[in-house]
Amino acid sequence: MGALAASFARLYGRLAAVGKGKRLVGVAIPLEDKSVDRLIEPLTTLVAEDMERVNEAILTRTGSDVAMIPEVANHLISSGGKRLRPILTLASAGLCRYGGAGHIKLAAAVEFMHTATLLHDDVVDESDMRRGKAAARMLWGNEASVLVGDFLLGQAFKMMVEVGSLPCLDVLSSAAVVIAEGEVMQLSAAKDTATTEDAYLAVIRAKTAALFAAACEVGPILAARSRSEISACRDYGANLGIAFQLIDDALDYGGSSAKLGKNIGDDFREGKITLPVVLSFRRGSAEERSFWRRTLEQGDIVEGDLESALLAMKKSRALEDTIERARHYGAMALDALEVFPASAWKQALRDAVEFAISRAH
Amino acid sequence: MGALAASFARLYGRLAAVGKGKRLVGVAIPLEDKSVDRLIEPLTTLVAEDMERVNEAILTRTGSDVAMIPEVANHLISSGGKRLRPILTLASAGLCRYGGAGHIKLAAAVEFMHTATLLHDDVVDESDMRRGKAAARMLWGNEASVLVGDFLLGQAFKMMVEVGSLPCLDVLSSAAVVIAEGEVMQLSAAKDTATTEDAYLAVIRAKTAALFAAACEVGPILAARSRSEISACRDYGANLGIAFQLIDDALDYGGSSAKLGKNIGDDFREGKITLPVVLSFRRGSAEERSFWRRTLEQGDIVEGDLESALLAMKKSRALEDTIERARHYGAMALDALEVFPASAWKQALRDAVEFAISRAH
Repeated sequence: MGALAASFARLYGRLAAVGKGKRLVGVAIPLEDKSVDRLIEPLTTLVAEDMERVNEAILTRTGSDVAMIPEVANHLISSGGKRLRPILTLASAGLCRYGGAGHIKLAAAVEFMHTATLLHDDVVDESDMRRGKAAARMLWGNEASVLVGDFLLGQAFKMMVEVGSLPCLDVLSSAAVVIAEGEVMQLSAAKDTATTEDAYLAVIRAKTAALFAAACEVGPILAARSRSEISACRDYGANLGIAFQLIDDALDYGGSSAKLGKNIGDDFREGKITLPVVLSFRRGSAEERSFWRRTLEQGDIVEGDLESALLAMKKSRALEDTIERARHYGAMALDALEVFPASAWKQALRDAVEFAISRAH
Repeated sequence: MGALAASFARLYGRLAAVGKGKRLVGVAIPLEDKSVDRLIEPLTTLVAEDMERVNEAILTRTGSDVAMIPEVANHLISSGGKRLRPILTLASAGLCRYGGAGHIKLAAAVEFMHTATLLHDDVVDESDMRRGKAAARMLWGNEASVLVGDFLLGQAFKMMVEVGSLPCLDVLSSAAVVIAEGEVMQLSAAKDTATTEDAYLAVIRAKTAALFAAACEVGPILAARSRSEISACRDYGANLGIAFQLIDDALDYGGSSAKLGKNIGDDFREGKITLPVVLSFRRGSAEERSFWRRTLEQGDIVEGDLESALLAMKKSRALEDTIERARHYGAMALDALEVFPASAWKQALRDAVEFAISRAH
């Protein structure tokens, strides 16, 4: 049995358990988690020193005389996200042998842009959990989430301006526009089971991959590398971002709550159209299609519907193929790196792709 | 009877009518409005040509393949705000004899920053009206208001980056941070009748005056003027912004709905603590203080309470003194301009101060 098949077997072991009515939440597989984390370790080790300076910048820049701001910002920032995006900024600078200090503030800015998006997303999705904790909006209200998000976005731009690279400012401000467009696209497509795979990909390219791409592009720009190396880093980030989002979407139907930091089935309950749904709907029977319409379009969800959704996905191989699609983008990310000579940085960035995908196993 | 006394008499004529139970909404005084508008005409005439280019930029930059974005953005942008902030950017560039084209995009960016704030404010305040129309959130939902606001903020930064002046980027990104801080400060002080006048001033300095100041500061920066001229424009904008906000606060209790673009008493119903309330509370009897606590802190508002609020303000001269405070900041704005030699621009900017204050009459 190949590695991919084995991982599906494990995933479906969990799904089968669900089918029998067991609780999904807390079905963590600690040994596996550990082996997956080992894949990101080379990268986190290489950036460790820089990351401390990024964390200092983050801490300083969430400071404000307005007490509520550091409180709300740090609730989310200190809640143990992997900080993958700022790590990518540091690593792309490392890969390109950048010798300055600009990457520290840009990495912090990238994390702030991401955090601002999460705070605003929670308001849009009416989420009650984020990274395994109560969402900020549940503790301080929607108002605080909107406004502290705006504050972090402002601080992100302020830090970029301090670095003073207009090409980096161009990349990151363009990303901010594209991310917002992606979020609105997602809103327009929400609850529409007729969403095509292409339309779905356009959404995640914008809302997720654009920031991954920008995070990776600013490193070679700071290091004054060639246009082809800048493009390579950008492509690496964009494809890694798509793979990452696809796995997130699969985990929402098949992961463990601990790994995901939110509840299994959140996307289902929120009527979110993700690739597992798109594939299940396309491949489903008339009866299954009306099931998806009732639950996701009309929001009419009753006891046992999540289990039915999981079984429909099993039947249509929707989760396997979502992970398979993620592997496809992961392969493109790896190929993008090939313009760079062998180095510890390059290998660690390769491992990061495997990390992003193996989370689903 | 002096001009100020006469304007109070007119204002209180309206309040007295309210006391007798007449409807506030629609008590417009067309002749007065016209004479007030005449004060802003010199400025709008001087910037007219540039403003057309700003409007083109605004139209182009709200464009997106995502259909909902131009729809939501233009609902608010085309709803006939006076565009005072971008006008100030154009005028400060004109005052300083700037010969380039950068002021056009910066003026559009300033308007986008303002529009983004309005969209997010409506979500925070749960407003149902804005500029005399249904608030965007009532038509497209809170989600769209949050996300289209983010889009406009992103576009604002993108335009600033295109202009390529790092000092202007510094001024405007710092303003974005301060505005968000001001909004959070307002949220923290919300419904707190113990708010001091100083605390209230700190809020409006941040949430309103910071953008007016930045809008005026970028003109002389683009024109490479001296530090003292840059400071002068900044101080003009900041003080004009405070005056403008104070008059807005007074109008919410004594203006006409047509002039205000929102309903009379909105601040009261939302429990907002503005200067008229701060003064009325300080100067009020024990009974009046418990009235303010019941209505604004506990949100327990019954029929006739708005009329009682207006009468308490009349008794404490809260509206007169709010307008008097506005005059004080207006005078500082005028003095700030004195480093510049006489010119049509300077006179038009002086008239704009009178315009901001005369709206209350």
